[in-house]
Amino acid sequence: MIIIMKANASDGDIEAVLTRLESGGWRTHVSKGEERTIIGIIGDERRLDQGAMSRMDGVDRVVPVLRPFKLASRDFQPDDSKVSINGHVFGGNKIVVMAGPCSVESLEQMRETAIAVREAGAHMLRGGAFKPRTSPYSFQGMGEAGLKILAQVREETGLYVVTEVMSPDQVELVSKYADMLQIGTRNMQNYALLNAVGQTNMPVLLKRGMMSTIEELLMSAEYIMSNGNHRVVLCERGIRTFEKYTRNTLDINAVPVLKELTHLPVVVDPSHATGKWTLVKAASKAAVAAGADGLIIEVHPNPAEASSDGEQSLKPQRFAELMVEVGRVAAAVGRSV
Amino acid sequence: MIIIMKANASDGDIEAVLTRLESGGWRTHVSKGEERTIIGIIGDERRLDQGAMSRMDGVDRVVPVLRPFKLASRDFQPDDSKVSINGHVFGGNKIVVMAGPCSVESLEQMRETAIAVREAGAHMLRGGAFKPRTSPYSFQGMGEAGLKILAQVREETGLYVVTEVMSPDQVELVSKYADMLQIGTRNMQNYALLNAVGQTNMPVLLKRGMMSTIEELLMSAEYIMSNGNHRVVLCERGIRTFEKYTRNTLDINAVPVLKELTHLPVVVDPSHATGKWTLVKAASKAAVAAGADGLIIEVHPNPAEASSDGEQSLKPQRFAELMVEVGRVAAAVGRSV
Amino acid sequence: MIIIMKANASDGDIEAVLTRLESGGWRTHVSKGEERTIIGIIGDERRLDQGAMSRMDGVDRVVPVLRPFKLASRDFQPDDSKVSINGHVFGGNKIVVMAGPCSVESLEQMRETAIAVREAGAHMLRGGAFKPRTSPYSFQGMGEAGLKILAQVREETGLYVVTEVMSPDQVELVSKYADMLQIGTRNMQNYALLNAVGQTNMPVLLKRGMMSTIEELLMSAEYIMSNGNHRVVLCERGIRTFEKYTRNTLDINAVPVLKELTHLPVVVDPSHATGKWTLVKAASKAAVAAGADGLIIEVHPNPAEASSDGEQSLKPQRFAELMVEVGRVAAAVGRSV
Amino acid sequence: MIIIMKANASDGDIEAVLTRLESGGWRTHVSKGEERTIIGIIGDERRLDQGAMSRMDGVDRVVPVLRPFKLASRDFQPDDSKVSINGHVFGGNKIVVMAGPCSVESLEQMRETAIAVREAGAHMLRGGAFKPRTSPYSFQGMGEAGLKILAQVREETGLYVVTEVMSPDQVELVSKYADMLQIGTRNMQNYALLNAVGQTNMPVLLKRGMMSTIEELLMSAEYIMSNGNHRVVLCERGIRTFEKYTRNTLDINAVPVLKELTHLPVVVDPSHATGKWTLVKAASKAAVAAGADGLIIEVHPNPAEASSDGEQSLKPQRFAELMVEVGRVAAAVGRSV
Repeated sequence: MIIIMKANASDGDIEAVLTRLESGGWRTHVSKGEERTIIGIIGDERRLDQGAMSRMDGVDRVVPVLRPFKLASRDFQPDDSKVSINGHVFGGNKIVVMAGPCSVESLEQMRETAIAVREAGAHMLRGGAFKPRTSPYSFQGMGEAGLKILAQVREETGLYVVTEVMSPDQVELVSKYADMLQIGTRNMQNYALLNAVGQTNMPVLLKRGMMSTIEELLMSAEYIMSNGNHRVVLCERGIRTFEKYTRNTLDINAVPVLKELTHLPVVVDPSHATGKWTLVKAASKAAVAAGADGLIIEVHPNPAEASSDGEQSLKPQRFAELMVEVGRVAAAVGRSV
Repeated sequence: MIIIMKANASDGDIEAVLTRLESGGWRTHVSKGEERTIIGIIGDERRLDQGAMSRMDGVDRVVPVLRPFKLASRDFQPDDSKVSINGHVFGGNKIVVMAGPCSVESLEQMRETAIAVREAGAHMLRGGAFKPRTSPYSFQGMGEAGLKILAQVREETGLYVVTEVMSPDQVELVSKYADMLQIGTRNMQNYALLNAVGQTNMPVLLKRGMMSTIEELLMSAEYIMSNGNHRVVLCERGIRTFEKYTRNTLDINAVPVLKELTHLPVVVDPSHATGKWTLVKAASKAAVAAGADGLIIEVHPNPAEASSDGEQSLKPQRFAELMVEVGRVAAAVGRSV
Repeated sequence: MIIIMKANASDGDIEAVLTRLESGGWRTHVSKGEERTIIGIIGDERRLDQGAMSRMDGVDRVVPVLRPFKLASRDFQPDDSKVSINGHVFGGNKIVVMAGPCSVESLEQMRETAIAVREAGAHMLRGGAFKPRTSPYSFQGMGEAGLKILAQVREETGLYVVTEVMSPDQVELVSKYADMLQIGTRNMQNYALLNAVGQTNMPVLLKRGMMSTIEELLMSAEYIMSNGNHRVVLCERGIRTFEKYTRNTLDINAVPVLKELTHLPVVVDPSHATGKWTLVKAASKAAVAAGADGLIIEVHPNPAEASSDGEQSLKPQRFAELMVEVGRVAAAVGRSV
Repeated sequence: MIIIMKANASDGDIEAVLTRLESGGWRTHVSKGEERTIIGIIGDERRLDQGAMSRMDGVDRVVPVLRPFKLASRDFQPDDSKVSINGHVFGGNKIVVMAGPCSVESLEQMRETAIAVREAGAHMLRGGAFKPRTSPYSFQGMGEAGLKILAQVREETGLYVVTEVMSPDQVELVSKYADMLQIGTRNMQNYALLNAVGQTNMPVLLKRGMMSTIEELLMSAEYIMSNGNHRVVLCERGIRTFEKYTRNTLDINAVPVLKELTHLPVVVDPSHATGKWTLVKAASKAAVAAGADGLIIEVHPNPAEASSDGEQSLKPQRFAELMVEVGRVAAAVGRSV
């Protein structure tokens, strides 16, 4: 950590900073420049309170040298993590594809979708039983009945299930039925929920907050991991920007950035990241070309009848075409679907 | 609701839309333009699924005519709501000022702060016992011990207490000690939590999500209100933008916009909305000039020692100066502090 | 165009709107709903002033049915435009790659770069002689001397040249030396400049403003085209968002969106869109996978010595690797480099 | 400036950085930490190329210590600048109010508006003769005929005139008629134009780019000032964010931030910053309460007939009410209108 003093900091201000650091057991280097004095601090800065230092008299700025996440950092673990769900490995050579409707609506709908997406080559089934909706008057999901449908369809089709958990007290229930717990974009900083899933051994699909930076996404992963659960898969699902033609802006840069910063697997949700089914295929191919380890895609047998997010859902036939085209791009980057 | 058909929509597409609407009991008006056909729908559109209609073949766009919130709407209740806490009324003539530290750190710190802010004219005490922090390694708050301190200081000083609740299972506990429940920016769309506080009769300070629209804020208020609790006070606390000089961008426009759209009281948090104590006074005066019904301000007896958010905390002496200046602006707009 | 009246609009308000429309020669459809009256307008709405209508008493909102751009619209011209520069065709099967340094610094630098990028398979040479720089104290480009270097290197290598023009009075000069005129991100809405290049017959590379929507980009293309110059190539180069880890956020969605809305060719600038050379390869592959017709990439023989934008410049060897990998992705989507 | 080396930087990398600095005449301080080496640089860092240093092998980040603007900086000139236009002083005790229509439409319209705003207490007249419009099909302004109208109305009413200049070749013409040159939001980084107005002695109203940072605004002021023209008044006019209820988001924080960073006067444009006339009064009062030195407000005798921006224009009567209320707030902060 480096402390940059103000141009008009007094000798007393500088002395006070040094005294505080030294009494805390830190070693320091002082550089007196022509305009400013700069104090370097030696040691693990994660132990030091940046904010408190920045508020001392005469301090202009405090510059951290290390990143604030640790367990999620590639510095901490240089090799790619692999998160395996019954043989499907996130972070390996294969692109793992999760597909299914936004919401579980009925057994027939889930069964029909599951059969179709399995046929097209999907590896896992998605579908929400608990749905975070902006309006209290919108469909809120089927709840446990929806979870039971997911479990039954898994029995019938062999497709493992990822589904959202919205509050700490649902974690046990959802874990009974699901193979992977999804944390949705609005809950990325719901710390009670992060702690709760961190105390399970379930794989977690952690979606980036639509308003969250890449670093904040990694800090939320760190919450889960610091509770002991390292089976975290990150998901870029589009961010909120000034552009309103699309529902969100797919931050495709986030894929190679995350690959630099962390060892955790990274998947992309092209459905939410665009909000329009006509754009999903292009976004999926871009994601794989950029290095994503997986995709989570909304597919519905009859999007016009979907109880949520139908605008961005693909019909099964179009999903099958997507899988073929994504497969070609995957091969072009040395991977397979 | 208005349905705009695509230029190339077939007669069959149009027929299908009309049939669906009419079978649902809606009356329609059809306008065939030179390039497009437009279908108007008569009745309460909140009952109609905009998404499903927009996904029918040949449909270009669906344009809602009414706003999606109802109980929170000024159309629903034209007169200003008043939320009263033991005589302090949000939404009346008086500007209600809540002040105190970001986090409860000790009885001494809270007592000293409370006495100072009461002296300066504050009406309520703020302070967090449960703290949402980006990093799992940062101080997470004192928990129930912090709540007990808040309650004790209330006894001693007569200042009523607003404090944050982070998860549904904390609602009962926090309600035992606090006079007003705060929903923080990261939890504005934590629907389990909104439902939980909606089922109490506690006043709620609902902070705007840092990247949530004004309409989403009102939809979250609608969640609380639709559970039966109408004692909601909205809080503009700054939004996330590209500007990085300040921690957030105070959306001062939101104050008069909310006053147009809703009858609920509106307060401003100038501390988070700026992130720098040097800006808090100017932002507070702007908020009151723009029509805010209250302020929530971070004050700490020794900001440099604060366990969180010290950069934006005022020393008691500066807070006292702020109160004097805010009082003058309040008088200029026909109100008092 | 549809006019939605306010709930409390009077009959007189409605009458006044109808009178104004009818006196302007418009036919109207009136739908009186339970809460609102809605007026549909028949005819080419581009002739009607949306703003003026929206300001009449009793009017709540005016909803346009058609898009505001015409010549650039795919409705206007369904087939892809092709912009050809001496045999290199933007908008055809081949991905056109423009490469070179941010700034022209010397004949040696340009010659070395040009030979290297031609060797790696680039089709055109980029390099700025006039440089828009945030600071007046930064290097502002070599001016005409730089243009002469570009022209000489074109003679030597056969690589055609794209270079930026910053003001209307430079258009004639730059056109003497360059094969394609670039409008930079800060000038996307410099209308005097758009009009000036619109009055030439030069191909134009129009970069999206870092703060501009997709629709605004198309409106700026419309400025050029409405002056008679239809040889416009659009460039997505990253937008400004709250994410600060990267210099900009590559809006990869914009590629398929533009392909839907317009017939004009679309290229991507992965160098500015990321701001870090380590991310350029992934972004380039994503762009081609998403459907881009070309790439413009910064390459510098010695990035550490570059007078601008060295952080995002590739060394020639890395550019050669990129071309190989991009070629594989291009083949996977049925195209070639 | 401080250079933070990567954790894995070699001794050779460090040596190379030191050699380069020392050969450039810089003195250095080296701090070898447990994980990283940090190099401090002594001297005026504005002479050193931050980018080039950051691209050397083994360098992680370069942290500037000083701000990049100089002439505009409050460090450079601690006292407030005053920009005087025929007795109206920006930066003094009085709030300078500029009012008038978005566009000059006719002599009658300007004369009627000017008389009304003078009556209400405005000090200067605004009105555009050259209009930057998103669409080439929208009204582009009356040009020189509009300037002549402005000049005539000035003669008749004594109100001095601020009007926009859009390109370098208009500067001479507009200067003949106007008392203050306005640089619009889309031209804040039109460097040819900044240089051109910098070479005059005309007062300049420099509007912040709708997606430009505060620092970039100051760098654009620096362009004008480094050409010798120090008569610059800054204008916050709202920034582009995700919030779409208002046309822009008024960054009220920018007012006190600019007051900290620069000695230049700061005015606010509440009309563009909100885009809705119903919000203009609240925004104006907030601006003055936050410390603005002036306001520029759109007023039109008949907003529904305005050729541009009528939604945000006040009728003269409402402007008069605004002036009364703003006057009270000004008095509350020790100023006058």
